[in-house]
Amino acid sequence: MSSPSTSFSGHRCFPGSTRVYLPGSRADLRVPMREIALTPTRLPNGTEVPNDSVRVYDTSGAWGDPEFHADATRGVPAIRAAWIAERGDVEPITGRGVQPIDDGYLSEKHRAQAEQEGRRNPLRPFDRTDRSTLRAKPGACVTQMHYAKRGIITPEMEYVAIRENMRLQSSRELLEMTEQGPRNSLFRQHVGQSFGAAIPREITAEFVRSEVARGRAIIPANINHPESEPMIIGRNFLVKINTNIGNSAVASSIDEEVEKMRWSVKWGGDTLMDLSTGKNIHQTREWILRNCPVPVGTVPIYQALEKVGGRPEALTWEIFRDTLIEQAEQGVDYFTIHAGVLLRYVPLTARRMTGIVSRGGAIMAKWCLSHHKENFLYTHWDDICEIMAAYDVAFSIGDGLRPGSIADANDDAQFGELLTQGELTTRAWARGVQVMNEGPGHVPMHMIAENMQKQLEWCQEAPFYTLGPLTTDIAPGYDHITSAIGATMIGWHGCAMLCYVTPKEHLGLPDKEDVRAGVIAYKIAAHAADLAKGHPAAQYRDNALSKARFEFRWEDQFNLGLDPEKAREFHDATLPQDSAKSAHFCSMCGPQFCSMRITDDVRQYAEAQGLEEQKAVEAGLKAKAEEFREKGGEIYLDAPKS
Amino acid sequence: MSSPSTSFSGHRCFPGSTRVYLPGSRADLRVPMREIALTPTRLPNGTEVPNDSVRVYDTSGAWGDPEFHADATRGVPAIRAAWIAERGDVEPITGRGVQPIDDGYLSEKHRAQAEQEGRRNPLRPFDRTDRSTLRAKPGACVTQMHYAKRGIITPEMEYVAIRENMRLQSSRELLEMTEQGPRNSLFRQHVGQSFGAAIPREITAEFVRSEVARGRAIIPANINHPESEPMIIGRNFLVKINTNIGNSAVASSIDEEVEKMRWSVKWGGDTLMDLSTGKNIHQTREWILRNCPVPVGTVPIYQALEKVGGRPEALTWEIFRDTLIEQAEQGVDYFTIHAGVLLRYVPLTARRMTGIVSRGGAIMAKWCLSHHKENFLYTHWDDICEIMAAYDVAFSIGDGLRPGSIADANDDAQFGELLTQGELTTRAWARGVQVMNEGPGHVPMHMIAENMQKQLEWCQEAPFYTLGPLTTDIAPGYDHITSAIGATMIGWHGCAMLCYVTPKEHLGLPDKEDVRAGVIAYKIAAHAADLAKGHPAAQYRDNALSKARFEFRWEDQFNLGLDPEKAREFHDATLPQDSAKSAHFCSMCGPQFCSMRITDDVRQYAEAQGLEEQKAVEAGLKAKAEEFREKGGEIYLDAPKS
Repeated sequence: MSSPSTSFSGHRCFPGSTRVYLPGSRADLRVPMREIALTPTRLPNGTEVPNDSVRVYDTSGAWGDPEFHADATRGVPAIRAAWIAERGDVEPITGRGVQPIDDGYLSEKHRAQAEQEGRRNPLRPFDRTDRSTLRAKPGACVTQMHYAKRGIITPEMEYVAIRENMRLQSSRELLEMTEQGPRNSLFRQHVGQSFGAAIPREITAEFVRSEVARGRAIIPANINHPESEPMIIGRNFLVKINTNIGNSAVASSIDEEVEKMRWSVKWGGDTLMDLSTGKNIHQTREWILRNCPVPVGTVPIYQALEKVGGRPEALTWEIFRDTLIEQAEQGVDYFTIHAGVLLRYVPLTARRMTGIVSRGGAIMAKWCLSHHKENFLYTHWDDICEIMAAYDVAFSIGDGLRPGSIADANDDAQFGELLTQGELTTRAWARGVQVMNEGPGHVPMHMIAENMQKQLEWCQEAPFYTLGPLTTDIAPGYDHITSAIGATMIGWHGCAMLCYVTPKEHLGLPDKEDVRAGVIAYKIAAHAADLAKGHPAAQYRDNALSKARFEFRWEDQFNLGLDPEKAREFHDATLPQDSAKSAHFCSMCGPQFCSMRITDDVRQYAEAQGLEEQKAVEAGLKAKAEEFREKGGEIYLDAPKS
Repeated sequence: MSSPSTSFSGHRCFPGSTRVYLPGSRADLRVPMREIALTPTRLPNGTEVPNDSVRVYDTSGAWGDPEFHADATRGVPAIRAAWIAERGDVEPITGRGVQPIDDGYLSEKHRAQAEQEGRRNPLRPFDRTDRSTLRAKPGACVTQMHYAKRGIITPEMEYVAIRENMRLQSSRELLEMTEQGPRNSLFRQHVGQSFGAAIPREITAEFVRSEVARGRAIIPANINHPESEPMIIGRNFLVKINTNIGNSAVASSIDEEVEKMRWSVKWGGDTLMDLSTGKNIHQTREWILRNCPVPVGTVPIYQALEKVGGRPEALTWEIFRDTLIEQAEQGVDYFTIHAGVLLRYVPLTARRMTGIVSRGGAIMAKWCLSHHKENFLYTHWDDICEIMAAYDVAFSIGDGLRPGSIADANDDAQFGELLTQGELTTRAWARGVQVMNEGPGHVPMHMIAENMQKQLEWCQEAPFYTLGPLTTDIAPGYDHITSAIGATMIGWHGCAMLCYVTPKEHLGLPDKEDVRAGVIAYKIAAHAADLAKGHPAAQYRDNALSKARFEFRWEDQFNLGLDPEKAREFHDATLPQDSAKSAHFCSMCGPQFCSMRITDDVRQYAEAQGLEEQKAVEAGLKAKAEEFREKGGEIYLDAPKS
């Protein structure tokens, strides 16, 4: 396989969609949205009523803009470069430079030899001629949290505020359908646990600033990744999803990884973790970063381990520190660091069903045991914070002792580490570093709330970022589903970002279709959680789609969905004719009968009837509702058990 | 296409599995289970320790037994025939006989003509020579509820008790892993809402009887469907799933439908609804019933509508009554009847986003409006009960006004009908008829609990049977996932049976792969709900699979999963070599490094360390746990809002 293609297949916008940009307070602040054009509603009397187009959050970056050159060798635009420079607190540095070891070679000769022998394909480096590497000026802290604490609203914060304020982009009609609540309900009560999320109806830049200052949200934004379009992770915002890619030791190639990145943001991935191992880690990451419009995260210990030949016990602080700097200079936006895996917690996993299943956790456990010393990530925490602050890399404090099975959920090893995550969070905040906390894993439904509850308390409301959780272990091949269930649950309770799981989890490496399946399952989870949290910018899309569905606007129904291509393909499998897409029936009921058509009759009837009869029914229901409330609507609710 | 094949493809058992039968108190009471053989654990020192085989609930009936003749023209064994006859309260009747109209033809001539013209394929009727049609003796009630109320434990009840008592079939080791709870946890508390389910650790036949007598569970068991293997639906038992099949007006054939039935029970469908419309309804159903080892449900109004040329306003009580008898004589085990769609509720749907989306609901609404009369299913409820009692057909009281979109969830039309479902439930119980209630539909996460709560109260704890619910409208093509999320939630809260949704929902007719995807998604939901309810017969399978996963017993991991074939296929896509299946690494980490291997080191370390250090950690955690409890673990829990 050759180095990454220089140009990719055509324009990525979905059918019926165009790219629009919302202006900010300055000319270079333009927030991308995807605008879905809708066809008119045809009334039974034949007249047509136009439908407003619908705008949706768009993660695809320049790749979703038809004007984009689409040339990966040039990368996507560095939209934040001017903002970063203007703040006057960074300076270009020579940096440590790329070394053969960064790609897993002992020397240049070693690398050349490997390529000659065909063991690795020649890897063209990304051309960085016009790019400089930045670092904070000596003593400066350049994090979004630092600015926020000082009351500064950065362009990044303004960008995020516009981006999160989807409701301002929605038509009045669709919003009203949401905001009036169900248009006729006496009973509706929301039984649930929101854990105190407080989402304002209008997201302002000042609200963004205050949440970042409080540590309740982060904007991952390395000064060396100016290509990243600002986004926010916090429980008072839209729930986000992360996707993982990586060239593992066994399979994959750079070409595939870059294309997977583009593929993941096309479907809606909000952030991307590059979990590459083996050779060519540095160059793979460079290609990804320069082409990636979303924040990129890594687990630096993976690369550090490669540098010591895969032997955890050979890891040192110096090698790890060098790797952090290498990656921070490249532009990685957040680092997973397993500093909470303390020596004293390790033996707590001995009696587990599935021991330590986190790769990073296992590496650090092995190191601790080999040296009988405290985890060097913990002992060097302040040193690490100093590096993070100089590039604005955010912490994603790892959960190295997360449960790998239902049997191990919520045990002492897991919660011991969570306590330490809380301590590390406070210490990072004191240095102005942004933090989120990673969470499980495998947890049955009834134990999920407890995870969120403890994380909020022990980690002072820092954003939680969980892997699923998977709600059962018995469905290998379907863990995007077992985990989307848990992800929805914990997202509702306030988890800020959900790390996707693909159908190949536990079995092998995901291919493109697996990535698509994983992303869509998680977009569903995130959106269902947004609905449940009562996010004001969530339900208008459901409303638009359901209205289209009810009015037999098939194309609109497809185009408003999370995966328009799949929806169209499935419809066409049964009724491929073009005429069927404008037909007032679907394959379930057939052309003779249609339940939706009957509703037209109902509406006419209700109009003719007047409201007398209806009022009588409502009076009867109201009496029942009051009786229900008097008896205490929650009589069946179990109190939490200890 | 020809009539159904007379023999099907070979034996259906999964790899590594054999069919076993558990004996009951009489020779003809043998409860099938699937027994999965496991390979031994290889310890690091090379010795092998055998693993007990694992038994799982098996819905595949005779089709999962290699001894079965597998000839569809002969049907599956009538295992209940003797039990029914012995009770002495039924008698063979001539019955109404099959009429051309039952298959959508005005006359025999009409049918012959259609076949000659090739508009329909010749349809060989199922050979009923050796079968008689049964009915209760005059004045007798032959329902399981009737027997239960009189203190009689039927063979069906005993069968169910053995079948539900999976924990007795599990190895001691696997059970202990569950029953000790997490083997080291100071914190674990179960925050959640079980709505008072009370599942005993041992399911006895007497417990089954008492639940059926109380109306809290049903055993759908038409005396004319002796082929059905008894199963129970109720919230103190394993959560069940229903699958739908049907030859719609637009596509499909009998061959396909019978094979879909076999396919659905192979993957784990607990009951099956035949939702056929158009021609050949009667014969399709006959082929299905005679070959179906699980209870079969229908929506009789669909067939009645065919008999009146598809015009709802032409429906009459007489035609409907005739259809009920036709189907009861054939052996249908439960009927969906939309008797709660009252005239006065219909106008409440006029202001909805998506009106009436239930086909049955729309039919009855149209009828009510056309005649401006009360729903004849409601006015004839007692007459219907009489028919149900004479064959032991159970009610599945329809929810014709269920919401078709998030915007319409939990509105007055829906809850008005639910109130009436409660009234109808009480009236049916008074006549000894078994009842479950159908529920929504489209409901966001935070409104799901309310559905369960009201159904339990208003319908006096009769089993709830919901369609999903779908937790968002924006993912056409993925509604098996949007709905599995809601299904898990409501299953946890006490919903007794979950009606599956396939990826083709809203778009077209499901094919075999869609059925498989829908069934597996719902088996996941049902099992995740069982875990969350704390069902004593749930977690042993997770434990067995996780242990296999941890010990790199790949074949065991595949075979213990819900879909062994998919798991193996996914694994082989990355590592196809046979040797990889016994390798101590997987494609995620590669051969050089393995997190699971490190756990072995941890165990050795913990052993060497002794317990001193660990005790110190535990003491520290314990202090924190106490502090947490003192502060009130549930401080973040919102009280239900009215």
